[in-house]
Amino acid sequence: MNYGIGIDLGGTQIKGGFFDLKKGKMLAKDSVDSRDGDWEGNVPAFGVEARGLVDSLEKKAKKEAEIAGVSAPGLARRDGSAIASLPNRLDGLEGFVWADVLGKPGAVLNDAHAALMGELWQGGAKGLRDVVLLTLGTGVGGAIVADGKLLRGNIGRAGHLGHLSIDFHSEMRTICGAPGGLEDFVGNHNIVERTGGRFGTTLALVEAVAGGKDEEAERIWDESMRALAAAISSIANVIDPQVVLIGGGISKAWKQIEPRVSHWLDEFEWRPGGARVELRRAELGEWAGAYGAVYNATIQQGMVDE
Amino acid sequence: MNYGIGIDLGGTQIKGGFFDLKKGKMLAKDSVDSRDGDWEGNVPAFGVEARGLVDSLEKKAKKEAEIAGVSAPGLARRDGSAIASLPNRLDGLEGFVWADVLGKPGAVLNDAHAALMGELWQGGAKGLRDVVLLTLGTGVGGAIVADGKLLRGNIGRAGHLGHLSIDFHSEMRTICGAPGGLEDFVGNHNIVERTGGRFGTTLALVEAVAGGKDEEAERIWDESMRALAAAISSIANVIDPQVVLIGGGISKAWKQIEPRVSHWLDEFEWRPGGARVELRRAELGEWAGAYGAVYNATIQQGMVDE
Repeated sequence: MNYGIGIDLGGTQIKGGFFDLKKGKMLAKDSVDSRDGDWEGNVPAFGVEARGLVDSLEKKAKKEAEIAGVSAPGLARRDGSAIASLPNRLDGLEGFVWADVLGKPGAVLNDAHAALMGELWQGGAKGLRDVVLLTLGTGVGGAIVADGKLLRGNIGRAGHLGHLSIDFHSEMRTICGAPGGLEDFVGNHNIVERTGGRFGTTLALVEAVAGGKDEEAERIWDESMRALAAAISSIANVIDPQVVLIGGGISKAWKQIEPRVSHWLDEFEWRPGGARVELRRAELGEWAGAYGAVYNATIQQGMVDE
Repeated sequence: MNYGIGIDLGGTQIKGGFFDLKKGKMLAKDSVDSRDGDWEGNVPAFGVEARGLVDSLEKKAKKEAEIAGVSAPGLARRDGSAIASLPNRLDGLEGFVWADVLGKPGAVLNDAHAALMGELWQGGAKGLRDVVLLTLGTGVGGAIVADGKLLRGNIGRAGHLGHLSIDFHSEMRTICGAPGGLEDFVGNHNIVERTGGRFGTTLALVEAVAGGKDEEAERIWDESMRALAAAISSIANVIDPQVVLIGGGISKAWKQIEPRVSHWLDEFEWRPGGARVELRRAELGEWAGAYGAVYNATIQQGMVDE
């Protein structure tokens, strides 16, 4: 087993990478529009586009891939054949059997799970046995590796850390129904409401904070980082990882994240024998899903041990 | 491997059971005072007492045990030789090597972890692959079995669900520092404060609720059950078990727990494809730790697969 392809299906784009599996290196990459809602005959357009990516990547790399893994939103079947559940988006994805259209053996995995598997293979979680990923973006995603293995759970839902209730009296409900869930205090999706209309994006808020003269921005950001720290302290107590890896678009504000979360963790975190959870930035950025997709495929096809 | 002993060390009592390992049956049981703080020479008294239990159980059962497992408070070393960390209680327990004094091979495990392993072996979690235990008592304890394996974490801390922050703005701090932690809304330790001095125990509060005429008791209990439901919904989103098992002294009030938690879960729980977490009462009561101690010893000694 020398070469493989990782496909990362998003709502607007499909990214693909061609990998040297032994070296863990991406030799070629490409991306196309995901055309959510379109069909070509009885195949959703994203399937046809993904198949096209496989072909174009093999041409670019001038090599043939023996395996193709997929990262996609939704809850994956345990056997990796398809996404079992994703309501209201990417019509046709539920039950879509990837191997049929990609023409190669592989497996599909939830996108946050895939991002962590990518980081575990070649990124910021390399060599770790117990590690949790939090992705801070539109919402908050997450994934857990415990004792070296991806924690999937009974229906593939494990790791949805954005839906951790950190304020159970709150009237807010996450899209999954969680009262006062982490992503409603940290995600970009409600930043306009959280800032009384002052900021359109979290990164604009952070810029104002970095300026040092905007007390209201400071207060809003501190509330958000306090919420994140409370969630990380809960993760430490319940999952007990060595490292919490932080990724997603908002993680670009690392200089405004790390010291503030650390400050609140000094107050919240249980540190038996001085042990403390290490905060780290994710390393693979927007390509983490492609890395994780192909790595997971090699595991699910029994080519490497987890 | 036919017979084994499970020792459950508590702050006031040490319980021991003699087990037929093949049948999973407890053939004899006994208990002694744990004498917290006493020493006999350079051995903590609980060690001497536990050794005495091993001898008396073998006499009672008229058989010899080949293995002795221990359940104890604190964080266990991964190799099962000793409890690594337990500040301020059971002087001498940290680093105490159990096999040395019990004279048999075995392993020591955190008490909440042991309770779940017991339930997994012979109680309410039998046959399950993904299950979480919550014990409602003085505090709230917990443990997680994921994909058939006990989740231990990096320093043996995994499963401390009482220290899940469910109200991060709260001024309350659990004994582990968690802001607005689950156990401060549900545990018996602060029931006097939570009821404005009206009730001395949670079970007395529940009795008033069951009477149906005490609106204040009703309101306090509902708040507690709402907190528990929010935590269970978080557990579903993050750990994704088939079953949440509820044990501990407060679980005697099952008739006042199950319908109220279910009511709040109808509002909070994410149920993709209709999947819902099943609530179940733990079955082994105060003997769960002894069951789990011996079962874990057989796993850690490599006698049975986890």
